[in-house]
Amino acid sequence: MPRWEHGSEDRLKTAAIELFAEQGFEKTSVIEIAQRARVATRTFFRYFPDKREVLFADAEALRAVLVERILQAPDVAEPLQLVVRVLAGFDWESLGSRESQRRRHAVIDANPDLLERDLIKHHRAAAGFTEALRRRGVDADVARLAAAVGIEVFFAAYREWLEAAETAELSRISERMMSRLATITPGGSPKWRWKFGQALKAV
Amino acid sequence: MPRWEHGSEDRLKTAAIELFAEQGFEKTSVIEIAQRARVATRTFFRYFPDKREVLFADAEALRAVLVERILQAPDVAEPLQLVVRVLAGFDWESLGSRESQRRRHAVIDANPDLLERDLIKHHRAAAGFTEALRRRGVDADVARLAAAVGIEVFFAAYREWLEAAETAELSRISERMMSRLATITPGGSPKWRWKFGQALKAV
Repeated sequence: MPRWEHGSEDRLKTAAIELFAEQGFEKTSVIEIAQRARVATRTFFRYFPDKREVLFADAEALRAVLVERILQAPDVAEPLQLVVRVLAGFDWESLGSRESQRRRHAVIDANPDLLERDLIKHHRAAAGFTEALRRRGVDADVARLAAAVGIEVFFAAYREWLEAAETAELSRISERMMSRLATITPGGSPKWRWKFGQALKAV
Repeated sequence: MPRWEHGSEDRLKTAAIELFAEQGFEKTSVIEIAQRARVATRTFFRYFPDKREVLFADAEALRAVLVERILQAPDVAEPLQLVVRVLAGFDWESLGSRESQRRRHAVIDANPDLLERDLIKHHRAAAGFTEALRRRGVDADVARLAAAVGIEVFFAAYREWLEAAETAELSRISERMMSRLATITPGGSPKWRWKFGQALKAV
């Protein structure tokens, strides 16, 4: 792809997020996005099927990269940590500045259609991670739980990172989030199991 | 509400799930659902805005019940267990037979639009649980993580329950799922934290 074309795609993404943040997702048209990015409207459609997809253009490629890292990981003995670690180890700033990601999420949170799309991307990522862990020999039920919980833990950290001071490291916030999970997860001792069983009867 | 009207609503739900399972969600019309349920088409619209909402009619009431149980729980010292326990303690069979719930989920899984809607219902439930835990004095970050992870743990158990033998108890499967989470969550010891930090650098 010639360099100027790659430039168009990035300018379209930036223009779309700016306009969505300024005037709302619903009120922004593809024509306006193309104008702000200084490209023809048909150029927009060369990269994206509609204005919603501008916000999720990287999702499939990102999922493929992360799945590949799980498949190539030296060790899958700790699948939950592996999922969090692979997510936290990705260079998120390669997708755009933290400020642009923050604005992107503000737009998504303000629009139920976009939020649905964001959630299904997480769901598909979880399915991809589950399958990758299974291919590495992890028990299917463990793989599913590790993928689902790992994604929740990581994105809780990612949201904190978006709001944090510029110097905060995502890897360190993710590590703290895993520790937080450890503090609220009972050790699985017989005593706890008994208490949980009793508590269930009381609800 | 007179008894016959309540009967119409239930018959519409049953008819819709049957037809979606038989011929697909897209191919089923509101007219067909009403015919199978032996009511007029306008009766359908007295209960549901569209055919998608038939599958999610109970979601808001269910969320309100569960939030109330968190607000009324005797103890919030273990917020993750509380979320799982409140979900597992609900009488899910009051929403319809396990077989009809199994069919409902098969329809949802086969249709991306429905899956998006299902995911956003979970997301809203997580927001409601987070707010309820916060109102009970739980730290905001802990509340958010406990709600998000608790919902993943419970629905992993619920999916197993849908597929399990008729005698399987949801509370017991949920308990086993919490134990599974405990086995894949590191204890948060300094040694683990160091290992996690090293592993992150290696990704």
